[in-house]
Amino acid sequence: MLITLTTDFGYQDPFVGVMKGVIFGINPHADVIDLNHGISPQDVMAAAISLRHSVRYFPQGTIHVAIVDPGVGGERRPLLIESAGNYFIGPDNGVFSFALEDQQPDRIICLSDSKYHLQPTSMTFHGRDIFAPVAAHLSLGVPAKEFGESAESFRRLLWPKVVRQTNCLKGEIVYVDGFGNLFTNIGKEDLREFPSEKLSVTVGTIEITGLAPNYAAGTGGGYIALFNSWDFLEISLYKDNAQRRSQAKPGDKVYVWFNR
Amino acid sequence: MLITLTTDFGYQDPFVGVMKGVIFGINPHADVIDLNHGISPQDVMAAAISLRHSVRYFPQGTIHVAIVDPGVGGERRPLLIESAGNYFIGPDNGVFSFALEDQQPDRIICLSDSKYHLQPTSMTFHGRDIFAPVAAHLSLGVPAKEFGESAESFRRLLWPKVVRQTNCLKGEIVYVDGFGNLFTNIGKEDLREFPSEKLSVTVGTIEITGLAPNYAAGTGGGYIALFNSWDFLEISLYKDNAQRRSQAKPGDKVYVWFNR
Amino acid sequence: MLITLTTDFGYQDPFVGVMKGVIFGINPHADVIDLNHGISPQDVMAAAISLRHSVRYFPQGTIHVAIVDPGVGGERRPLLIESAGNYFIGPDNGVFSFALEDQQPDRIICLSDSKYHLQPTSMTFHGRDIFAPVAAHLSLGVPAKEFGESAESFRRLLWPKVVRQTNCLKGEIVYVDGFGNLFTNIGKEDLREFPSEKLSVTVGTIEITGLAPNYAAGTGGGYIALFNSWDFLEISLYKDNAQRRSQAKPGDKVYVWFNR
Repeated sequence: MLITLTTDFGYQDPFVGVMKGVIFGINPHADVIDLNHGISPQDVMAAAISLRHSVRYFPQGTIHVAIVDPGVGGERRPLLIESAGNYFIGPDNGVFSFALEDQQPDRIICLSDSKYHLQPTSMTFHGRDIFAPVAAHLSLGVPAKEFGESAESFRRLLWPKVVRQTNCLKGEIVYVDGFGNLFTNIGKEDLREFPSEKLSVTVGTIEITGLAPNYAAGTGGGYIALFNSWDFLEISLYKDNAQRRSQAKPGDKVYVWFNR
Repeated sequence: MLITLTTDFGYQDPFVGVMKGVIFGINPHADVIDLNHGISPQDVMAAAISLRHSVRYFPQGTIHVAIVDPGVGGERRPLLIESAGNYFIGPDNGVFSFALEDQQPDRIICLSDSKYHLQPTSMTFHGRDIFAPVAAHLSLGVPAKEFGESAESFRRLLWPKVVRQTNCLKGEIVYVDGFGNLFTNIGKEDLREFPSEKLSVTVGTIEITGLAPNYAAGTGGGYIALFNSWDFLEISLYKDNAQRRSQAKPGDKVYVWFNR
Repeated sequence: MLITLTTDFGYQDPFVGVMKGVIFGINPHADVIDLNHGISPQDVMAAAISLRHSVRYFPQGTIHVAIVDPGVGGERRPLLIESAGNYFIGPDNGVFSFALEDQQPDRIICLSDSKYHLQPTSMTFHGRDIFAPVAAHLSLGVPAKEFGESAESFRRLLWPKVVRQTNCLKGEIVYVDGFGNLFTNIGKEDLREFPSEKLSVTVGTIEITGLAPNYAAGTGGGYIALFNSWDFLEISLYKDNAQRRSQAKPGDKVYVWFNR
């Protein structure tokens, strides 16, 4: 049974390694995959978007642990969610909103049974003391309901909607990857009814005409727009960093114009 | 048998990956965990602190390899230390000082038998040529004493002591994590006899009143002090980077005042 | 069967983790090693150099996947190369030039059979959609020729040659590691006929007399030159960052003088 880890712990400290120590101490045969430890500190939204496009590529039955958890040790509940044959373990702060976007989970458990937690349990590192040991016990076959009491719902973040206006769509940048590519919330289906050869895309003072089929289409220089591997409209610079050059950032508005 | 790796190699080069190639070439069934490759270059003290708080979370019998080794190829000895059922492999420069703080090892071996080293053995990368192959052979069951001659002792760094003064404790910052949290050397036991509600903490011009139970207690803004997951007094900013804002650094003095 | 991954994806996104999800979905028993994800974006040359010195440390039969692929979705072919019992999977852009420097491969396959690709196949992430699934199927024993049509050759980058002049060798910096060490293209064999005690090395305004046996020989301060773990002449600063201090970079000329 695979366990994936998504955190904002970065790569400077032993925090992720220690979680693996806890997991292997409980289940020496666990298969643990680092899905993403480069989430910006406390950026629950980025983690939720990252998970949205990742979960489908893992085999059913995978346990996804996500720890971007500024509220650790406070009132937010630690959860285990079972949905469509997969498991999600982390704080109830919206981090699983988009991975479970169209799903009504089969089971939501509040991780209240301290029998499955490390003792003593710190107030600042539930990844180590609660989420890692629960994931490890779950991977050994402990039934989900053993970990605590059932809960009715979990917190869901709002996905920023694309707005249809007279001659354009209005969206926004939702994610910037390590290459500096600007991911928008505008999906392929949003543009289905429009002829792609007459599109233009604007963000700030940048204007792009038409859609590119791939990055290499941008060898001539200048920004390009294309549908990326997450099926999002993306603004990119061939062999360059669009974020650094444009200074655009999540939340900036993006417009797709038709026949302008 | 688990093997953990702690290095200052960072994430830009194939050095860690090559060590794993060497290990799997010798023991195809080794379980290797990246404990921490983000140690600042040559910062033996940070590696020693990182290991101090990590080893206890791994199952007994784990082999901990640590390579922060500015003296590689020179006179410092390559060691294998067996203590309390765990194994420690690395240069004799103090990197295991705090992981073995209260322990008298069962066995200290100088890795002098070149039969277990890669040939030729470089003067600049003993991680690849000595420490990785020794760890792999050890994980296959080769007895510790086979790797070389016994040694009497190993190098121990000094832990900076907390000083008790009339109405305060004087400690210092010993570690800064990737979130910018400032870890001090002041432990829970140092404060045991003092009522926590009347404490204040100062570092530089920062003054903090009382202890917080968790990070979210700092939602009002401003620095907080709390006991972190390593049981150290830590100075933190909720959803912000205390190091960047304060410019504090390891070695800076920290005071805990009583009834001031 | 080991699978190694070399990419320019960095550590900020879930891209590498998703490739592992794809691999484990096809072969749950795959052994995947992160060889290097810190290649600078689109730096095919750096990836080729990194692989040159890594492949020999992995057991025969290893599958090396390399994805530094600015031409993804365009005309460059996706390849599988079998050579000396090892496998190389990636774009045909020269990334395997030096790992296969002296080798004539046994087989070169263009990955044209879409049966082994994820459907739909994106135009921007062949690591996920083509290279990861092909590597996983190969690790399960699917014969190389099943993945597509044979190809005659693959793209090879030129290795910068060391030039022999009257009283010196002229080379250049080819790689800078995470410590800031400057790797040149000057190998041990280039200097074989010269007495090492009378050498001096210059790069820009830096002049170094003689060769150091190891890093610790530089404790006195100042730049040193030594042969590193890749058997390259390297310029280094003890416990300091030679690149940052000198601002030297790949392509800068390096001279080794005799009896000057």
